[in-house]
Amino acid sequence: MSAPRPRVVIVGAGFGGLEAARALRRAPVDVLLVDRHNYHLFQPLLYQVSVAALPPSEIAYPIRSIFRRQRNLTFRIAEVERVDPVRRVVVMGGSEIPFDYAILAPGSVTSFFDNASIPRHAFELKDLPGALRLRNHLIRCFEAAIGADDPIERQAFLTIAVAGGGPTGVEVAGAVSELLRRLLRRDYPALPAGDVRVLLYEGGPRVLAAFPESLSAAAAKSLVRIGVEVHTHTLVESFDGHTLTLRSGESLRAGTLVWAAGVRATPLPATLGIPVDSTGRVAVLPTLQTREHPEVFVVGDAARVDTPGGTVPAQAPPAIQMGRTAARNVANALAGRPLEAFAYKDPGTMATIGRKAAVASIHGIRITGFPAWIVWLFVHLMQLVGFRNRIVVFVDWAWQYVFYRPASPIILSIDEETLHSKVLDDSARRT
Amino acid sequence: MSAPRPRVVIVGAGFGGLEAARALRRAPVDVLLVDRHNYHLFQPLLYQVSVAALPPSEIAYPIRSIFRRQRNLTFRIAEVERVDPVRRVVVMGGSEIPFDYAILAPGSVTSFFDNASIPRHAFELKDLPGALRLRNHLIRCFEAAIGADDPIERQAFLTIAVAGGGPTGVEVAGAVSELLRRLLRRDYPALPAGDVRVLLYEGGPRVLAAFPESLSAAAAKSLVRIGVEVHTHTLVESFDGHTLTLRSGESLRAGTLVWAAGVRATPLPATLGIPVDSTGRVAVLPTLQTREHPEVFVVGDAARVDTPGGTVPAQAPPAIQMGRTAARNVANALAGRPLEAFAYKDPGTMATIGRKAAVASIHGIRITGFPAWIVWLFVHLMQLVGFRNRIVVFVDWAWQYVFYRPASPIILSIDEETLHSKVLDDSARRT
Repeated sequence: MSAPRPRVVIVGAGFGGLEAARALRRAPVDVLLVDRHNYHLFQPLLYQVSVAALPPSEIAYPIRSIFRRQRNLTFRIAEVERVDPVRRVVVMGGSEIPFDYAILAPGSVTSFFDNASIPRHAFELKDLPGALRLRNHLIRCFEAAIGADDPIERQAFLTIAVAGGGPTGVEVAGAVSELLRRLLRRDYPALPAGDVRVLLYEGGPRVLAAFPESLSAAAAKSLVRIGVEVHTHTLVESFDGHTLTLRSGESLRAGTLVWAAGVRATPLPATLGIPVDSTGRVAVLPTLQTREHPEVFVVGDAARVDTPGGTVPAQAPPAIQMGRTAARNVANALAGRPLEAFAYKDPGTMATIGRKAAVASIHGIRITGFPAWIVWLFVHLMQLVGFRNRIVVFVDWAWQYVFYRPASPIILSIDEETLHSKVLDDSARRT
Repeated sequence: MSAPRPRVVIVGAGFGGLEAARALRRAPVDVLLVDRHNYHLFQPLLYQVSVAALPPSEIAYPIRSIFRRQRNLTFRIAEVERVDPVRRVVVMGGSEIPFDYAILAPGSVTSFFDNASIPRHAFELKDLPGALRLRNHLIRCFEAAIGADDPIERQAFLTIAVAGGGPTGVEVAGAVSELLRRLLRRDYPALPAGDVRVLLYEGGPRVLAAFPESLSAAAAKSLVRIGVEVHTHTLVESFDGHTLTLRSGESLRAGTLVWAAGVRATPLPATLGIPVDSTGRVAVLPTLQTREHPEVFVVGDAARVDTPGGTVPAQAPPAIQMGRTAARNVANALAGRPLEAFAYKDPGTMATIGRKAAVASIHGIRITGFPAWIVWLFVHLMQLVGFRNRIVVFVDWAWQYVFYRPASPIILSIDEETLHSKVLDDSARRT
């Protein structure tokens, strides 16, 4: 029997938590990785699931498979309720798990700000169930449109608004516009092509505000070309499932609102009993430790790291880099070595616009259009976890690209009760 | 403007309805095809989805895609409430659709006979949501077993009973046994291998009662070899989610019961106002018309066709053949030609037992073991609708076969509320 090794609890198996767990594979510790799902989600491609371009299984990878060979790691599927940094326990499923070190990577959730009506009716793209709900809803809208007698109703079913002009909003608006026009042309020829409307609302002066201005302009142009109506300086005020109202007071009929206008940290950091910022994040030390509890690290979307170049963005690459640094610092602390400061290496940013255009800004180099799409495709395929996923995703994409059709636009309700969706019921009631 | 053409309403896009709709593609009629889902399900492979060997999208094909080029066909997604053969209307979604001819192919549902407790706790394999629920439940049982302190509890989570020794029961028992042992070995090495138990209960004297006796014996032997405990002459009496009680009074702890012990027709035929048999089926004329209403045809699992060789079984091949005959008879009736009698051509029966064995009986030739599995694989791949599905399924199978691991064992709850499944909650309560 060897002496018990220090226990490192990692909360969240997103990009940050996964990388931290991996980086500890040779450390003399017992790692307990906890996530509410049994899979790691490749979130950058989530919008592709929502437009039926990829099946869910191809962007979700079972956590136990990933860590099959890592002997010092245990995985538990559970929802962590809170972390008590004073008693050094993680509370989950009614029981308390003690830790020597904790790396918190709980990620972020959608922020609806003060729009009380929106969470009830809008779709979000933060997890697989959400992406599938949006996919099912879009196809149900088409079925409802086919069944609608009133042309105004019909148009409303085919009007999709996207709030938020960041990468997620831009990608989903482009993909949805292409999906709907393609679906209409191929599977619903009875519907007038002009009925499909996709509107993108951005509160600021330009889409992709974090990108160089020239790329914002190129993205907006590409969006318009594939049928997206881009509205900047426009805020969505409310949505009741049928009518969308803008801050300006203007309103329009729409069957769908996708909310991609903001994120905030999950409620977990707030349970630590230490200060969090207005979006729920913990301002961590350069070592990624919390100021108050050096055994507790926070990484990814839940960590606020300010650098001379600005706050590190809530994206996958910084989360991965933070996860690695936090893991190394746990090992440093255990070995009595000085901890290292996190230094963010910006790999560049990119966003796709529909099926064959993208914008990318990589180390000062700006690429647009089809070449950027090829770069985007390559980067994402290389990042996908697991060899099998990589080839199957590639086959699927190649197929879609050549034959130009979504892979599996089926409505798949796990819950039979949801078969008669709100939209279909409403449609029946109106006709 | 041409004169309105006769309307043929087809209810159900399973094997029978799909074939009927296709067979009417050149007939001078307007076809309205109605199904509650927007996809056709390749039901013979459904059990493969339940063991995570195939993702759902690979056995479901969008109906609008299938009929994209069939100009005389309209598809509607709706639940048909009843059919009024006197007024010649189909009632769905609150509205009435008039028809000149109706081909009813509503299929079958699970029959629980008088076991009142079973529907609440057992899993069934009749549709995709059901298969996914079973898959999620099995993986949750493993997660619960990992968390269980009591060895009796742990074993109970890993005990799976299958009721019914027909092809579905045999296939799911074999596949589940292989999946669980494989999962345990690879992803849950902390669990004792002996804890996995798969029990198959058959009320009659042998499994696969419809097959020749030598194949039943071969199937039972193959099942035992891959770890299935086969109990014939044994009826399941009740199941409360934790304890399974047999008709004999014997009981055991089990986390899962899969019910594959019987089917009956959906409630639709009973709405016709004509006699149905004890399993809800309509005894149709040799022409597949109902005796009382010659404009109404019934095909597939909902039709009872008695031949000198016995009642035609509730399977895909007879459903397809009936769909074709019914469509031809609609065309015959319209053209004033005599109707033809349905003549069932038995293509043989087969069932897989786990990953590399099967039994098949084809025109008197009996094959067992690996050769039968190859035949089974080939027949099913060739039958799969759509070229893309065929190659992707093949890639997946080849992958699984070579690397011996399930393709995507992720727990995917569309409903976030279902995250904490009953089993996990129970487990937490007990520990």
